[in-house]
Amino acid sequence: MEKKKIKSEEKNYDFIIIGAGVAGLAAAMYGARLGLKTLCLGTSYGSELPIGGVITTTNIVENYPGFIRLTGTELSDKIKEHSLSYDLVTIKEEKVENIERKKAFIVKTNKNEYIGQTILFATGTKWKKLEVPGSKEFENKGVAYCALCDSVLFKGKTVALVGGSDSAAKDALVLAEHVKKVYIIYRGGQIHPEPINMHRIKVAKNIEIINKTNVIEVKGDRFVKSVLLDNPYKGSKELSVEGVFVAIGHIPLSELAKKLNVNLNEKNEIIIDHKTSETNVKGIFAAGDVADKPFKQAITGVAEGCTAAYSAFEYLTKSKVQPY
Amino acid sequence: MEKKKIKSEEKNYDFIIIGAGVAGLAAAMYGARLGLKTLCLGTSYGSELPIGGVITTTNIVENYPGFIRLTGTELSDKIKEHSLSYDLVTIKEEKVENIERKKAFIVKTNKNEYIGQTILFATGTKWKKLEVPGSKEFENKGVAYCALCDSVLFKGKTVALVGGSDSAAKDALVLAEHVKKVYIIYRGGQIHPEPINMHRIKVAKNIEIINKTNVIEVKGDRFVKSVLLDNPYKGSKELSVEGVFVAIGHIPLSELAKKLNVNLNEKNEIIIDHKTSETNVKGIFAAGDVADKPFKQAITGVAEGCTAAYSAFEYLTKSKVQPY
Repeated sequence: MEKKKIKSEEKNYDFIIIGAGVAGLAAAMYGARLGLKTLCLGTSYGSELPIGGVITTTNIVENYPGFIRLTGTELSDKIKEHSLSYDLVTIKEEKVENIERKKAFIVKTNKNEYIGQTILFATGTKWKKLEVPGSKEFENKGVAYCALCDSVLFKGKTVALVGGSDSAAKDALVLAEHVKKVYIIYRGGQIHPEPINMHRIKVAKNIEIINKTNVIEVKGDRFVKSVLLDNPYKGSKELSVEGVFVAIGHIPLSELAKKLNVNLNEKNEIIIDHKTSETNVKGIFAAGDVADKPFKQAITGVAEGCTAAYSAFEYLTKSKVQPY
Repeated sequence: MEKKKIKSEEKNYDFIIIGAGVAGLAAAMYGARLGLKTLCLGTSYGSELPIGGVITTTNIVENYPGFIRLTGTELSDKIKEHSLSYDLVTIKEEKVENIERKKAFIVKTNKNEYIGQTILFATGTKWKKLEVPGSKEFENKGVAYCALCDSVLFKGKTVALVGGSDSAAKDALVLAEHVKKVYIIYRGGQIHPEPINMHRIKVAKNIEIINKTNVIEVKGDRFVKSVLLDNPYKGSKELSVEGVFVAIGHIPLSELAKKLNVNLNEKNEIIIDHKTSETNVKGIFAAGDVADKPFKQAITGVAEGCTAAYSAFEYLTKSKVQPY
């Protein structure tokens, strides 16, 4: 690819990345290294996440190889700075509203329109909402989805944490640092975090696990006062809590990909070739939490992003000289 | 001095990693996080590489997301320290000489014998070296083996690329994005990349092919200044270049895997499921350069290693093999 001056033609890019979490930011860095004029668009779905994505809501990251311990924001800032160390990378905090395929991809945001030769979906996921009476009514009045963001607001209080995954366990541990007491309420037989986090939960003095139980209603007046359970706990189906944190999973942000005829699996994750990060549609790639890898970690999303950049480079080089 | 007797419990591991490059070291860290008693064995083939593997031979790494610039040894040291921050990880500088499958895997090194419930091959490859006067002396002073890693360092310069394969051609194309001029120097009658890459090379304005020619010496002072050819090119046997990239092949270190009936591809790379890092043999995984990913980078090998640790954990849990 010939060298381009970014400022003179800000509309045209070789590689447009939808999503500015760690997978997208790392892909931008690799794209630039491969000579691709790269645009990385954050807050693509108008979520409240800043540049850096969902990992910014995690206060302790200990499993990105090379960094023994840092915050999610520190990690994403490092990867952002890394990608911005290349002139070919532009990062913009704009919401992508539509993508159309003509000869190239026309990417419309809330502010601008861009033309991309290739597209990477690194859109991630959004939190699955707790769908029970009261959960919507008390959102921001005791019902919360980001333990890291909001745990300080519940200092000294008693809260419920709904969920049983490793993510849920980490949220419980974050909450336990601030609140008086955390009840983990999980519908399944046994919560299933990473062993190291299970151990931490057992060691914590203010976390109690209630398995085989669903929250069926959130109650309160101005703020949450209790949750109703479908199984009695210590003789009562009503558990007094002042907060309800929800960690029951994620919904892949794959709608725009679907509109471009990209294949999704039954979970609405984008199906990729894990050797190349290619989707079924030429010129469209996917990486990170929106893709169909069962083991989703910062490190695997980042690697998928880098692989996607390389595949985009290969695709562009090929299509440029491909005889018709 | 009397050899220290190994305690009986030190022989048994949940997860034995053959190879202590960045893929293996990162896998060890993840293994420990997942509660696996993990042994990582370096210098598995008695190569001259220290713990840290092939990346220790690269003096500038700029493409591991999160670190803008560091040496290969700095990166591998960080990942080694990261894995050693977990008590469940043991790293030993021993050469693996044989692996046998009985009920578990019996791993024999030059010093000891271990029993592993699962095995990860992270053995890497060795570069076929250019064996001419000066080539060793100027390694990292102009002589390089990884175009993708190091091409940016030669921005605006003139370089030679020794080799004629498809891989060599792709290296030349990567180089051509950054350098002023690439001479492909090939001993055979005609370089033989895939037709599409041959076409790309012809289209590129700054790549020139010199067939039927060998580099017989690398010359310079502090850095490479020229190569000596065995056939005159434009009247001279001395060609001024500031870099010599060598792409005459690498050899996957997959012999021990093959003996365990692990499937290899035509390049002798270990075939893995790229979603899980599993090989065709239950309990055996592979990651990094020895595996069959076309795009081989530190970041992708590290992610494959982490994925392998997770798959080993899943396999052990599923098969109900009791951890120690």
